[in-house]
Amino acid sequence: MTQVLELAKRLMAAPSVTPATGAVFDAMEAMLSPLGFEVTRFTRGEGAAGTPEAPVENLFAIRRGPAGSKHFAFAGHLDVVPPGGGWTSEAFDPEVRGDLLYGRGAVDMKGAIACMVDAVAEVPVDAGTISFVITGDEEGPALHGTRALIDFMREAGHQPDLCLVGEPTSVNRLGDMMKIGRRGSVNIWLEVQGTQGHVAYPHLADNPIPKLVAMLAELDALVLDEGTDWFQPSNLEVTEVNVPNDAHNVIPAVAKARISIRFNDLHSGASLSEKVGAIAQKHGGSALPIISGEPFLTPPGAFSDAIAAAVKAETGVDPEPSTTGGTSDARFLRAVCPVIEFGLVNATMHKTNEAVAVEDLVTLSRIYTRIARDVLAG
Amino acid sequence: MTQVLELAKRLMAAPSVTPATGAVFDAMEAMLSPLGFEVTRFTRGEGAAGTPEAPVENLFAIRRGPAGSKHFAFAGHLDVVPPGGGWTSEAFDPEVRGDLLYGRGAVDMKGAIACMVDAVAEVPVDAGTISFVITGDEEGPALHGTRALIDFMREAGHQPDLCLVGEPTSVNRLGDMMKIGRRGSVNIWLEVQGTQGHVAYPHLADNPIPKLVAMLAELDALVLDEGTDWFQPSNLEVTEVNVPNDAHNVIPAVAKARISIRFNDLHSGASLSEKVGAIAQKHGGSALPIISGEPFLTPPGAFSDAIAAAVKAETGVDPEPSTTGGTSDARFLRAVCPVIEFGLVNATMHKTNEAVAVEDLVTLSRIYTRIARDVLAG
Repeated sequence: MTQVLELAKRLMAAPSVTPATGAVFDAMEAMLSPLGFEVTRFTRGEGAAGTPEAPVENLFAIRRGPAGSKHFAFAGHLDVVPPGGGWTSEAFDPEVRGDLLYGRGAVDMKGAIACMVDAVAEVPVDAGTISFVITGDEEGPALHGTRALIDFMREAGHQPDLCLVGEPTSVNRLGDMMKIGRRGSVNIWLEVQGTQGHVAYPHLADNPIPKLVAMLAELDALVLDEGTDWFQPSNLEVTEVNVPNDAHNVIPAVAKARISIRFNDLHSGASLSEKVGAIAQKHGGSALPIISGEPFLTPPGAFSDAIAAAVKAETGVDPEPSTTGGTSDARFLRAVCPVIEFGLVNATMHKTNEAVAVEDLVTLSRIYTRIARDVLAG
Repeated sequence: MTQVLELAKRLMAAPSVTPATGAVFDAMEAMLSPLGFEVTRFTRGEGAAGTPEAPVENLFAIRRGPAGSKHFAFAGHLDVVPPGGGWTSEAFDPEVRGDLLYGRGAVDMKGAIACMVDAVAEVPVDAGTISFVITGDEEGPALHGTRALIDFMREAGHQPDLCLVGEPTSVNRLGDMMKIGRRGSVNIWLEVQGTQGHVAYPHLADNPIPKLVAMLAELDALVLDEGTDWFQPSNLEVTEVNVPNDAHNVIPAVAKARISIRFNDLHSGASLSEKVGAIAQKHGGSALPIISGEPFLTPPGAFSDAIAAAVKAETGVDPEPSTTGGTSDARFLRAVCPVIEFGLVNATMHKTNEAVAVEDLVTLSRIYTRIARDVLAG
């Protein structure tokens, strides 16, 4: 018990508001090296602090098993969201009060990373190859984070067979939910050009609003799908309409809107962008998509069974395999190997007085040990 | 020729950016009193300059004919729009260059008022009763202008039988158009309330945009009418849509829009407000109308015939009876008696270097004399 709590406190004591570099990675390296891990750290981004190109540190660590053995990766992030105000204790001065350990990153996700480190100490070296894929840029733009780690792994020939991301997926109690997939996300900016004019002389103008309205009506009425065995139906929301006009007598020249689509694995960001673009064009407008993430799905099977069995053994709970919620770095890792997310209870993530039950750290460490042993043996 | 030009210059030399009081009315009174007119001036509004309640001066002048004789009114405004920059000569220092008299108000409408004054000098007192209904607030909010003059006339028992407004209705040459009506105008603010939420969890939110879109689609598809003998079809334009939202992941709480309707005499501001309000309500929204003006129509007949005959006699032109364009104080005077607008060429109104052909002043004065004699005799 002392071990995993101490590891979590050491990581949480290093301030690492996204994007993270330096001390928190020093702490991580100091934990992994004694366990036989070969650690590689690299920094990407040369921009000023506060820009999307600000420096980001990444860490890849590997402990090789016997030749030809399986390779299992733990993935996660050491950066955290800003603490905000109103904390009872200092956000970066982790403190146990009662049964809980308080501090930024307790559940999202330095606590889970401490569990991973603690867990691998209990996995024999000859069980197989284990790696850590740890970024300092998950909460930010994620330009130079896990994507850069994936490039590094490809070049170094370190392709894991399975990957577990330690995001806080549990909802009410540790173990009640794992994420076997996530929806994709695309935002699309819509625009219709018209011709400005006076309301009293509409024949001399070309009002773009009716075209935009017809476009939005058609988009809103789209049924993208009925959902799948593992995903809820894809959903399109109109999130902004923007035709400012202070003059009562003027027909405006341009009308703009924005939609946001959360979609399942029946679609891709590109297929939806094409579909919306065609509708926009039909109504005399244009569409500019920005794809935030593609969906991923690791269908229930041996990997999810191993996780469920480990959770059941340590907690008595059957984890629900879910695909709900926002996006995570699993959207990138899916390109490398099957990936599932499982971690602590997310009730306090991103909030003031973020906290984890000390007992949950101990239990999660045991769960992670079981998972690693099981999938490496499988 | 000297007389009407001098009268126009005297009015134009008194700066009178809307709302107007004082000097320009002193000049007007000094012209009318020697012609046998009984002049009443009053100021309304006690607010600060620049507010809708800023003081406004009005002038009513009457020269009574024989008992039981007809009462013909000339109506107009002595306020002008701000001069703006770039004038060749000073905007309030009227100057003849070539054939033209330059200065703010030359055509809209101090020039026409000078013609009215010049014209009545040629109409015998026993021809009938003539009045002047002159405001200093037509270009502004028009709260305390012609409406107050109408109240005054009612209370004083000076109800004209016919009224001619001297707005610059001519388009390419003096006499080519008179306005026998104007469309009404109403702006309606639309709003739909929803419930804000996260795009990933749309079942917990209530997006107001689809409701607003459906409302706007139905409003835009409305056929209000097919036009009448004298009016073009009523027209509805969506002029603003306003659902600002900087967050890509947020479903907004409220969606707003504005429409502007220009309508003929098959409708009233109230009937359209009711129709739009019902459609708004059907889509879960609300509507707030502000009626700028009701339509008016003085159907072609003896009055327009008298004007057309006078124009034809002096210019050889047949004036087109039109109902196009924006609004004027005729929207108020229509409640008192039949009203028609006829005046100078409007090409330079509200513009830099506003100017009137000196010859047009002379001709318009003669036209106004003919009209007054004719309608008083009729």
